[in-house]
Amino acid sequence: MLNFVHDIPTKLLFGKGQIENLAEALKPYGKNVLVTYGGGSIKRIGLYQKVMEILKENSFCVTELKGIEPNPRIESVTVGVKLCKDHKIDVILAVGGGSTIDCSKAIAAGVFYEGEDLWQMVLTAKEERKALPLVDILTLSATGSEFDSGAVISNMKTHEKLGGSYTYPAVSICDPTYTFTVSPYQTAAGSADIMSHIFEGYFSRTEDSDLSDGIAESILKSVMKNTPIALKEPENYSARANLMACASVACSGIPEYGKQGTGWPCHGMEHELSAYYDITHGVGLAILTPRWMRYILKKDPSVTGRFAKFARNVMGLEGKDDALAKEGIDKLEAYFRSTGIPMNLKELQIGEEHFEDMAKHVDKMRSLKNAYVPLTAQDIVEIYRACL
Amino acid sequence: MLNFVHDIPTKLLFGKGQIENLAEALKPYGKNVLVTYGGGSIKRIGLYQKVMEILKENSFCVTELKGIEPNPRIESVTVGVKLCKDHKIDVILAVGGGSTIDCSKAIAAGVFYEGEDLWQMVLTAKEERKALPLVDILTLSATGSEFDSGAVISNMKTHEKLGGSYTYPAVSICDPTYTFTVSPYQTAAGSADIMSHIFEGYFSRTEDSDLSDGIAESILKSVMKNTPIALKEPENYSARANLMACASVACSGIPEYGKQGTGWPCHGMEHELSAYYDITHGVGLAILTPRWMRYILKKDPSVTGRFAKFARNVMGLEGKDDALAKEGIDKLEAYFRSTGIPMNLKELQIGEEHFEDMAKHVDKMRSLKNAYVPLTAQDIVEIYRACL
Repeated sequence: MLNFVHDIPTKLLFGKGQIENLAEALKPYGKNVLVTYGGGSIKRIGLYQKVMEILKENSFCVTELKGIEPNPRIESVTVGVKLCKDHKIDVILAVGGGSTIDCSKAIAAGVFYEGEDLWQMVLTAKEERKALPLVDILTLSATGSEFDSGAVISNMKTHEKLGGSYTYPAVSICDPTYTFTVSPYQTAAGSADIMSHIFEGYFSRTEDSDLSDGIAESILKSVMKNTPIALKEPENYSARANLMACASVACSGIPEYGKQGTGWPCHGMEHELSAYYDITHGVGLAILTPRWMRYILKKDPSVTGRFAKFARNVMGLEGKDDALAKEGIDKLEAYFRSTGIPMNLKELQIGEEHFEDMAKHVDKMRSLKNAYVPLTAQDIVEIYRACL
Repeated sequence: MLNFVHDIPTKLLFGKGQIENLAEALKPYGKNVLVTYGGGSIKRIGLYQKVMEILKENSFCVTELKGIEPNPRIESVTVGVKLCKDHKIDVILAVGGGSTIDCSKAIAAGVFYEGEDLWQMVLTAKEERKALPLVDILTLSATGSEFDSGAVISNMKTHEKLGGSYTYPAVSICDPTYTFTVSPYQTAAGSADIMSHIFEGYFSRTEDSDLSDGIAESILKSVMKNTPIALKEPENYSARANLMACASVACSGIPEYGKQGTGWPCHGMEHELSAYYDITHGVGLAILTPRWMRYILKKDPSVTGRFAKFARNVMGLEGKDDALAKEGIDKLEAYFRSTGIPMNLKELQIGEEHFEDMAKHVDKMRSLKNAYVPLTAQDIVEIYRACL
């Protein structure tokens, strides 16, 4: 087991009705609140109205930033930073999914960024930095942004979608009932995102970090158990609650404690797909993951044991390592397909025209030479091709 | 899944060599440090000398409180509080196991306690309170005090050993190499303590908190895998590291998130044994646990399913629920015995003379009427008798 540091300052208020603690969560920071959100979904479920009511009752001064995109853009960050400065914002309240929270983290940090160009901040976001306090109300179980310091910001002009570290939320309100109306497609995509956060750390060269591996396997099993239930019964509280708890922990770093870094290859490859084609992140991950798995298993058979472990402990299969490793991947792909995710790029009208450029960019940004199984730009092109 | 709040401010620095970050961890709080420790073990392993060297190099002013007992006493808390006041202590540095850290938490809070009698503080320690900052260096994998706000303080005059909530450590330095010299007896007892922290939450009426249950099962499996290795090879880093990571998470509350409270019956019963006979906490727990399990399984067969789940997922057994539930408990008892723990009270020269008084006191302090399977004072006497 390798050394690690656990240092997550976020307070999670988990469960139905936790919004009752919203005013209390905001009060320590001041009166001027920037409320950020995406499309209209929080209005459809009445959450927007409830939030505004609480803010009004408690005499907060509200500024709004709406229309944050599913793959949040640098332009929204820029607008948000200006609003914070113009309105002397004390605290940001993000209401939405990972995109809204991600964008709000970059805004919170952007307020204190001294350069002219906020895209430069994104390019250099290696660690937490000074930021406005951030409180969020989560409405989608997927990215885990409510329990980590990371954010992913896109620049559609340069075809770049870049992850970085900004700031932890001070408080995250995680009420599973707010996910009751999430569509089947987004539920499945979010669940694939949760699972990918686990896969990216689980397939590592460190074999003796029992608790991390146990947490990882527990999350994968719970997601595969509860996603079909949530798809069938969107208002099944237990299923939605399990997905939400899993999402928060999956991307927190906890399932990787003590383990050797892996480079997060599927996220690197998927960010290119989103940057070029603006597809749903979790869908891109679901398409890439089994192809990446098959590719590295073939390239480096020394990883067979870990894939067999995954097949046994997570997919519930039995048998000899060689066959098992492959069967586990097949069963995973079949599972993703069963949740309604289009499992190849052609269904998304994506061809191979940009694969070379995308692969070069992953290679430049991620240095997957240090990945679990090292990948060259050519390897990445091959993996993209297998996804067609 | 029930509502929960995650709010753990402690920063864990985990792994070998983390002591290099000690000065940095203390500096934000001030120059006057109270170093607390127990017997001579930290001197034997050279840790005391290393700590003093770092404190001297960084110009801290050191006051010492040594000789903190294995079941720390209210008298030590009183002495510590006086030292803090007399020497204008800014931060407490606890070097040792759970007892030293527990005592230090009560001292840290005691400095701000306004009453005359610190035992009154212990009697009313229901939640975190204002306290001096606390940094610790852990030397025993057992209580999890390095990652929670709780402490257990004893009053041998009144035969009381009471758990309460005081303050979270600001920073915990968890270096598994400091546990290389822990004796086989204490290693086994510490491991039983870790497992008991899991059992106390795992056997709950909430069946749908997947991640909590998964974490709980992972910790139990890891402890049962790594304890025999640590007993055989005391300097096996991987085994010691896994035990240390499991210990920190086991008592953090995390394995109980979303689950109905259970009253922690074995801890209630064990604290009486320690209060009367000053036995090693983990040994008392190991003796009590299988007897409590058998007793409640007989008293309320509706819990059979959960015991069967434990037998399947943790003990690796297969079969039908009724038989499995019992076999799981038998295998657990055999496991405890295999680690060298004396598995009955007679071996510790404990007879039944105080059982009635002890049971009445548990009944008064714990209200086990709300336990997983509710227990009366008479039930508790029966469980004690089964331990003879």
